[in-house]
Amino acid sequence: MSNELERGLEGVLVAESDLSYIDGSDGTLLYRGYHIEDLATRADFEEVLYLLWHDELPTRAELETFTEKLTADQHVDDDVLTAVADMAAADADPMDALRTAVSLLPTYDPESDADTDDAAVGRRQGRRITAKIPTILAAFDRARRGKEPVEPDDDLGYAGNFLYMLTGTRPDDVAEETFDMAMTLHADHGLNASTFASMVIASTMADVYSSVIGGIGALSGPLHGGANEDVMEMLEEIDEAGADPVEWAKEARADGRRIPGYGHRVYQVKDPRANILESRLRDLSDASGDTTWLDYTTAIEGYLADEGLVEKGIAPNVDFYSGSVYDHLGIPTDMYTPIFAMARAGGWIAHILEYQSDNRLIRPRARYTGRTDADFVPIDER
Amino acid sequence: MSNELERGLEGVLVAESDLSYIDGSDGTLLYRGYHIEDLATRADFEEVLYLLWHDELPTRAELETFTEKLTADQHVDDDVLTAVADMAAADADPMDALRTAVSLLPTYDPESDADTDDAAVGRRQGRRITAKIPTILAAFDRARRGKEPVEPDDDLGYAGNFLYMLTGTRPDDVAEETFDMAMTLHADHGLNASTFASMVIASTMADVYSSVIGGIGALSGPLHGGANEDVMEMLEEIDEAGADPVEWAKEARADGRRIPGYGHRVYQVKDPRANILESRLRDLSDASGDTTWLDYTTAIEGYLADEGLVEKGIAPNVDFYSGSVYDHLGIPTDMYTPIFAMARAGGWIAHILEYQSDNRLIRPRARYTGRTDADFVPIDER
Repeated sequence: MSNELERGLEGVLVAESDLSYIDGSDGTLLYRGYHIEDLATRADFEEVLYLLWHDELPTRAELETFTEKLTADQHVDDDVLTAVADMAAADADPMDALRTAVSLLPTYDPESDADTDDAAVGRRQGRRITAKIPTILAAFDRARRGKEPVEPDDDLGYAGNFLYMLTGTRPDDVAEETFDMAMTLHADHGLNASTFASMVIASTMADVYSSVIGGIGALSGPLHGGANEDVMEMLEEIDEAGADPVEWAKEARADGRRIPGYGHRVYQVKDPRANILESRLRDLSDASGDTTWLDYTTAIEGYLADEGLVEKGIAPNVDFYSGSVYDHLGIPTDMYTPIFAMARAGGWIAHILEYQSDNRLIRPRARYTGRTDADFVPIDER
Repeated sequence: MSNELERGLEGVLVAESDLSYIDGSDGTLLYRGYHIEDLATRADFEEVLYLLWHDELPTRAELETFTEKLTADQHVDDDVLTAVADMAAADADPMDALRTAVSLLPTYDPESDADTDDAAVGRRQGRRITAKIPTILAAFDRARRGKEPVEPDDDLGYAGNFLYMLTGTRPDDVAEETFDMAMTLHADHGLNASTFASMVIASTMADVYSSVIGGIGALSGPLHGGANEDVMEMLEEIDEAGADPVEWAKEARADGRRIPGYGHRVYQVKDPRANILESRLRDLSDASGDTTWLDYTTAIEGYLADEGLVEKGIAPNVDFYSGSVYDHLGIPTDMYTPIFAMARAGGWIAHILEYQSDNRLIRPRARYTGRTDADFVPIDER
């Protein structure tokens, strides 16, 4: 038992995991041994979910069975959709609405009374949560625009279906493929705070619902999710002011403000996910003929490279590109963190199931720094 | 950076805290330096909440101001009460209903958009959550019995009001005092799993709502909350079988079953909270003339002491007595864990605010035990 204070648990090994490997010095990210570049560009998100929840990429037959179940699970009970519409009418924050809707789901889960040490049940519940999040989010965003929910289309994949349910129109191939990639890129990333929060809850053998809800809560914190919303706000601010992006970035730095989407606790080089999203942003800009966000982004990145930030290990992270990609896909800015949760739920669930398969209650200590000698004085003598 | 695996983070110091001190070898429990015995028997729960959230016990004037605000905050929006009634109608688990209802609250919080680094806002939101939990739980339990919610009575204290809103009748002094004590006894207990879960979420600077919801989720796990429900089920099982409690316990031990409410990761002697509840169980049994649970409980405790368990450091914990106390107060068994959450919310909130006042994102590591060399194979070649 060490008496050293492990602030933020930085560097503390709390579990063994087969799920994701990160080398921040050369920008490597693997899921179960596979390079993120291969998974993002050569596999569908459904294959990645299967990989995370099982041990291996699926065969065609395994994928078909899996996708069929995932698709069937996308349908959300009317009671939950009514609650989602009520929250939209009450102007709920989208992360609050997502957390509440997921919290309602076990009441409608046929296996909600099952023992939580039954891993097969946990995996099915994880699949149900993952399947229903897009339906919930799309219904919420439509409700606040005064629109009825769009039923999931069983012929569309996970990513395509979300865009379809959100907008009411079937996405084109570039949009669908891009969003599918974005889902894969955000699916897992070691023991970040939201993943760890879900593991701490899971360590009490609480169910997957309670554990995932902890992940959603943690992701809502400004130190975790939300940086891609900040990037988008920066780009919009530059645009509205008609400013030169390089001058804007210069001024921000002179004022001591952080450039959003830059730097990462884990990566000392450009985040591998940022490279992939940058290339998709190019494709989307070409396809739409609107290169505004691409131009601003590359101008700022070029300026910061000239300023020597890359040498200092401060490079673009995944958030630097994801915001403008989502904007091209027609996704409202305040839905960026909820769709981060939609992708990361896959990782949370994988870590929950992995941790519970060799479970130990997580209960650290605090160093007591308070009094030990307070004499109780009755209230009227205080 | 150590390469040792800290399973369950047992013994790892993750924060400094002035809140609670436990000495498991002699059964000491202090909140901010005050002995739990003094707080439970000589202070009201409202004073304890004030102590946990501020630095010191309140003066009479401070308590009056505090109680006035807490009482005003007990009123819950009709939309939330409707959602609670809907969940009762859908036969929701009480912990699922509590988690969902608390998740709905920020949508109706006038300060839900405030910066989470404003501690004064956090404290007010914590007060609102704590105030509303009894109203939510009582309304839920009444709704599933087909009864309308009872409005909180502004003349009653926190503990008395819960019993009043649950049963519809004003509790007598013994009942009110006992429940007030039970609240104090459960309010804080170091970095248990639910408190730590709420701190991990808070470390992202998420709001108090998201953080408390993580605590509720963790408490729902069978390894954390719920042991007092198991004790009650044991007592009822003995009663229904007309069994001799000592014979029952002998048989349970012979079959290798754990006696619920016995042993604690932290205490090697009788839990100080158990002593206090035992004395209240005596008072309640005397007052009602029904000594059944008291007789069973003391018989089992005496038998296990004769068997030498105390010498082995296995003694009654708080759960061994709280169940039968709650049963005397007319509280249904499946509400025991929710009322544990109702009391512990005070501690969660104190730890959340304390941690955020000197915050550091909690992000441990996992030891990667997976492959690093998987070659991607396209799906049709797998």
